[in-house]
Amino acid sequence: MRIGIAGLGTVGAGLIELIQKHGDLLARRGGKSLEITAVSARDKSRDRGVDCSGYEWFDNAVDLAASDKVDVVVELIGGSDGIAREVVETAIGNGKAVVTANKALIAHHGTSLAAAAESMKVPLSFEAAVAGGIPIVKALREGLAGNEISRVYGILNGTCNYILTQMEESGRDFEDVLDDAQKLGYAEADPAFDIDGVDAAHKIAILASLAFGCPVDFDALHIEGIRHVTALDIAYATELGYRIKLLAIARRGEGGIEQRVHPCMVPLHTPIAHVDGVFNAVVAEGDFVDQTVYEGRGAGAGPTASAVAADLVDIARGLNLAPFAVAASDLQEVPTLPMDDHEGPVYVRLMVLDQPGVMADVAAILRDENVSIESVLQRGRSPGEVVPVILILHDAREGAMKRVLKSLEEMEPVVEPPRMIRIELL
Amino acid sequence: MRIGIAGLGTVGAGLIELIQKHGDLLARRGGKSLEITAVSARDKSRDRGVDCSGYEWFDNAVDLAASDKVDVVVELIGGSDGIAREVVETAIGNGKAVVTANKALIAHHGTSLAAAAESMKVPLSFEAAVAGGIPIVKALREGLAGNEISRVYGILNGTCNYILTQMEESGRDFEDVLDDAQKLGYAEADPAFDIDGVDAAHKIAILASLAFGCPVDFDALHIEGIRHVTALDIAYATELGYRIKLLAIARRGEGGIEQRVHPCMVPLHTPIAHVDGVFNAVVAEGDFVDQTVYEGRGAGAGPTASAVAADLVDIARGLNLAPFAVAASDLQEVPTLPMDDHEGPVYVRLMVLDQPGVMADVAAILRDENVSIESVLQRGRSPGEVVPVILILHDAREGAMKRVLKSLEEMEPVVEPPRMIRIELL
Repeated sequence: MRIGIAGLGTVGAGLIELIQKHGDLLARRGGKSLEITAVSARDKSRDRGVDCSGYEWFDNAVDLAASDKVDVVVELIGGSDGIAREVVETAIGNGKAVVTANKALIAHHGTSLAAAAESMKVPLSFEAAVAGGIPIVKALREGLAGNEISRVYGILNGTCNYILTQMEESGRDFEDVLDDAQKLGYAEADPAFDIDGVDAAHKIAILASLAFGCPVDFDALHIEGIRHVTALDIAYATELGYRIKLLAIARRGEGGIEQRVHPCMVPLHTPIAHVDGVFNAVVAEGDFVDQTVYEGRGAGAGPTASAVAADLVDIARGLNLAPFAVAASDLQEVPTLPMDDHEGPVYVRLMVLDQPGVMADVAAILRDENVSIESVLQRGRSPGEVVPVILILHDAREGAMKRVLKSLEEMEPVVEPPRMIRIELL
Repeated sequence: MRIGIAGLGTVGAGLIELIQKHGDLLARRGGKSLEITAVSARDKSRDRGVDCSGYEWFDNAVDLAASDKVDVVVELIGGSDGIAREVVETAIGNGKAVVTANKALIAHHGTSLAAAAESMKVPLSFEAAVAGGIPIVKALREGLAGNEISRVYGILNGTCNYILTQMEESGRDFEDVLDDAQKLGYAEADPAFDIDGVDAAHKIAILASLAFGCPVDFDALHIEGIRHVTALDIAYATELGYRIKLLAIARRGEGGIEQRVHPCMVPLHTPIAHVDGVFNAVVAEGDFVDQTVYEGRGAGAGPTASAVAADLVDIARGLNLAPFAVAASDLQEVPTLPMDDHEGPVYVRLMVLDQPGVMADVAAILRDENVSIESVLQRGRSPGEVVPVILILHDAREGAMKRVLKSLEEMEPVVEPPRMIRIELL
């Protein structure tokens, strides 16, 4: 099986290393030899730590995708459009199997690409696009195929989880830890995609489609990142018996599906609360299997190359499933449950001037929106100074909470925007 | 796809319920309808809570396996030989695909059955045989196919894990908790297979073959159960920062493979330490993917039926892989590393008469076998009474420890057989 690799960043180099090292193993498992025949990248001269001299070089990845010396195209360029999309479309159009690690591409164009691949009867595989080291695409598409899935959620962005873990361990604030993470290579120079939740959103959109049999719908997602999580919030979470994690959640509810990414407080006793650093974890719940949990490294050259290699072995073995578990034409549109209707407990932190009457005003605002207070946490008194006041509210509807937060912010003694973190009891 | 089910216990009934409930879902995912056409069990009159009236009844499961009204035979009878084996061999001999939940059968005859299935070009699938709710067979056979696996281990017996968890939570002793577990249906009337480690051994033998590409070799296993774990040991484990779990471990070492099942003390910070009650967990480590962790329900009608259904959907989709990931003829014999050569830290509990000179004699026995003491735990003094003495020994070789335990037992102040529990740092 002749493999062409488009994109030679760390994952591309990792994949070349894997195939060079495990040639015999892959041939025994795949039933035929897996040979890299062609590669493409922007800069031919760069030293990538692997020997590419035996492979045909393409300056233009689209030419590689069309080359008759390639049976399977591995797309490792990235980005939802542009060259990556062109490479994948060209490969499929030329009747070649495609393996990609590109979550943005699949999250935005997965359904139409799947339809194209199915009409050409070629596999389109993307295990590496979601939680690299965890075979969760395969688990949802095949391993849990006997279940109606009710919910799938997880920690899908290693950068955010690393930052939150570091913040908790060191007590330092977000910007400070982000800075370190960038120096250590755990965060990109432009970290927006990770820390604003977009990367996790791409991944949960893909998992939602696999779990619920609906077209991938990135635009249905409610997305918040971790920029506003403070060391103070983390300290309060610990005190209250929670940990703060960026969760990506897809849930089948009454009459539709909700998909959301945002920081959550999760109870200490849940498996997800103990997933630290760059590790990812996914929980999938089915009606017969009950709860299943998967944990592993989410990114990096080795785990991502491992996922690409698994897809390649599947293709060598002749596996050719519908990319989203059911035929693209069989994917069923499901309504998106509006985020405003979401209901659940929340944590709210107010920074207020400690003066008489504040709590009465806060309580009145909550009462007017029919939101119940479960507990209030304010330590001691410091008349005339700014103090944090923590509210735990239950059964709070998002729509009502928006108005509550706005009213709270307009209160004169409230000196900075209130911060809300949803509590997920899981 | 016409399915015949041999064996209508709780799993058989669960599978019928699943297929009846999820007919549409399975058809969409499998690309064709999955129809039960025939069933077989010993007692036709028993009420199983599901309607079997639409299926052809066979008093003899072997006849069902040979029937031309069946494309796929699901074997849910159990046992390594006898009728179960005959059913599977008959089905394969008649060119039918087989799905089985029978770990004893696969652990004892997996390689020859795989060879037979391959020569008939039919699938032989056994996801349900190992950790029902966890798609770990698929993960090892497919999801991690790009890796050389160095180790796979886990909690593979829910009965033992339930008993150990209950012992820890209640402080009660083994027999007492076992009794309760039997009343609650978490332990069989004859619990030997579970509590003596045989069931976990069947499962790890299967996972070892999948991970290392060697023939299944149940006889290579070192097996100990949990009968000798006491409430006292559990209390000491907690004090020392460990939890006691029955682990099944398969590891590729220098020049061979070790496979063992025994109670272990595992550090509190490991994922496996937090897997409680009837849940199972498996950890698989590969050279590119690093550590991956899988957790879910190990047994019961729902999770086991889910695993069988996944295998059925795979077969409907046309998947026909070598049952052990590589062709049976390609499985490579690997030497078994002798348990006597195993080396690691251990916990030893002595019950001794508190009298002068005991520790000097204990220390001399250890010195003579070249075993180092890391720490000794003895609380206060009770001259003339029996007290527990805890030894933590490091780098202890099994061969030496056997002689150490014998010599310790022969000491006059030692009033009951010393108990050793291996410490796995994982």
